[in-house]
Amino acid sequence: MSEIRQDPVVGRWVIVATDRARRPNEFANSVAAPPEPETDPFAEGNERLTPPEIQAVRAPGSRANGPGWKARVVPNRFPVLRIEGALEKEGEGLYDRISGTGAHEVVIETPVRGQELEDLPLDHIAAVIGLWRARMTDLLKDARFRYLLVFKNRGWQAGATLSHSHSQIIALPVTPMAVKQKLAGAQAYYERKERNIFADILRQELKDGRRIVYQNGAFVAFCPYAARFPFEICVMPRRQCADFYRIGDQELLPFADALKACLLRLRVGLDRPQYNVILHTAPARHPKRDYWSTLDQDFRWHLEITPRLTQIAGFEMGTGFYVNPVMPEEAAQFLKEVEA
Amino acid sequence: MSEIRQDPVVGRWVIVATDRARRPNEFANSVAAPPEPETDPFAEGNERLTPPEIQAVRAPGSRANGPGWKARVVPNRFPVLRIEGALEKEGEGLYDRISGTGAHEVVIETPVRGQELEDLPLDHIAAVIGLWRARMTDLLKDARFRYLLVFKNRGWQAGATLSHSHSQIIALPVTPMAVKQKLAGAQAYYERKERNIFADILRQELKDGRRIVYQNGAFVAFCPYAARFPFEICVMPRRQCADFYRIGDQELLPFADALKACLLRLRVGLDRPQYNVILHTAPARHPKRDYWSTLDQDFRWHLEITPRLTQIAGFEMGTGFYVNPVMPEEAAQFLKEVEA
Repeated sequence: MSEIRQDPVVGRWVIVATDRARRPNEFANSVAAPPEPETDPFAEGNERLTPPEIQAVRAPGSRANGPGWKARVVPNRFPVLRIEGALEKEGEGLYDRISGTGAHEVVIETPVRGQELEDLPLDHIAAVIGLWRARMTDLLKDARFRYLLVFKNRGWQAGATLSHSHSQIIALPVTPMAVKQKLAGAQAYYERKERNIFADILRQELKDGRRIVYQNGAFVAFCPYAARFPFEICVMPRRQCADFYRIGDQELLPFADALKACLLRLRVGLDRPQYNVILHTAPARHPKRDYWSTLDQDFRWHLEITPRLTQIAGFEMGTGFYVNPVMPEEAAQFLKEVEA
Repeated sequence: MSEIRQDPVVGRWVIVATDRARRPNEFANSVAAPPEPETDPFAEGNERLTPPEIQAVRAPGSRANGPGWKARVVPNRFPVLRIEGALEKEGEGLYDRISGTGAHEVVIETPVRGQELEDLPLDHIAAVIGLWRARMTDLLKDARFRYLLVFKNRGWQAGATLSHSHSQIIALPVTPMAVKQKLAGAQAYYERKERNIFADILRQELKDGRRIVYQNGAFVAFCPYAARFPFEICVMPRRQCADFYRIGDQELLPFADALKACLLRLRVGLDRPQYNVILHTAPARHPKRDYWSTLDQDFRWHLEITPRLTQIAGFEMGTGFYVNPVMPEEAAQFLKEVEA
């Protein structure tokens, strides 16, 4: 059973998830070998190796937990949080903890081992994005959950423990500090200027042009002005919307197109880098609470792609500063010119 | 020339340090080979391979930039910030940047290649700590600098690019957000309770005992209640003092003793893990500003040792949450029993 502990000084949350614990001598920093075809739990035909599926995009007539699928959502076999049980909050002297209640799901993006998200046709990527949307819409019905994070780890240094292409969804019983800071920044800007900061960023990026990597009718991809990582990319919708789960049907293919264009450019230009994909969206807003009631004006959902070419070292950990050795303008120029 | 850019939404700072830039195809994630004896810039006899030394602990009669030293401080050859030039602040539309003014120094901890900090005798470690103190005391005279960070990266995943044992000092022209959050948390606690939160933490840890790793007359080492990393250790002075640079002469040997005890236990127990060491201290407080005027009551300097056995993945990056697979109580018990 896991528990969520809060740092008493800075308020940062930590999930202590001992179900995933290894013995001290099992922390060797070795790269996990790609699974053999017969033991890959995410390959078609091996559906028995995962917990029963929650949802899937399937061929007509195929049966749940059997072959015939394009993408599948299953519970994480080693979840950091568990869906069972009431939320319990408890103090211990000056410390605070919460029971490890939440959800942790895996979106298997393709039945084919070795195929990456960016290899898939646009309608298949759009189907994966549709599964993110569907799972978020469903999980938001659970009033215990305050924040839902969709993310993807590619490569072991980016945190992936399985090489078969997948993304993950975690539902949290508290709103993370990093999310609150982002929302507070956006709200403060709106209060001062009565303008949405993401709209202003997009306007300035399009006018300037030097940091644009790719754009289509509904999305713009650019290297952020204060990018933390070399070749970091932000994908921003042109349409104002705080919640990713309210992405329109007509936006799914353009979003898939922008995502594919960025991932292909990174792969070709940087020789298959390890990376993370992080979806930033507004927290759950239950009608009975009026937290974040202005987010529809203040905030806009967006996606970050962060190649992991540099290490997070003592300086970053001690200050929250990042050191980026590549000017975002040069990174964007390089990625724009990659033939992908 | 580097510049410091601020994220317009969350206020996070990023140093874009292009002097350290590599071409896109040079970001291969390869482990740097340990240098050969004749090319190790930090080895005795190779002093000509570093910039001229700023300070050193030397045998009587030995000459600067020649052999005969125990520990040496030199400017970083690839600094993230440069000492030259006035601080310039500039806007660009809604973005903000500062010139890359600061200092970046390297403390070479031993003349002997392959020797680690924890291998050194206590008086040698105390001499290294004395150099940290001396450099901070000196850099604090420069009114451009707001925050000084002492840190150490051990192993390439922890950010080390040279394997010869060393630590680093960076002087920053702004107070980092992560530091401000820590100070604000400590101040809020004091306002509420009129007690120092670090004193309260120490009292609770000593009374509870389950998370204590090591202690002597002046320092206590424990695994924090909400440790982000497995086997993370905090070393806290028993004496209330906000600024590390005001550590007393009589505290140098006990601090060296606690640091050595922790590093040896990690090395033996976890088979030479990669790790970071981070010194948390109060920011520069110039007489003309009254920022942080209550820190002497609120804050206490301390040191964090964070083994890097797990990866920082999309979930951590998207939320600021951490996932720790080992209960801090079990980590402390394990480390306490290591025969080191």
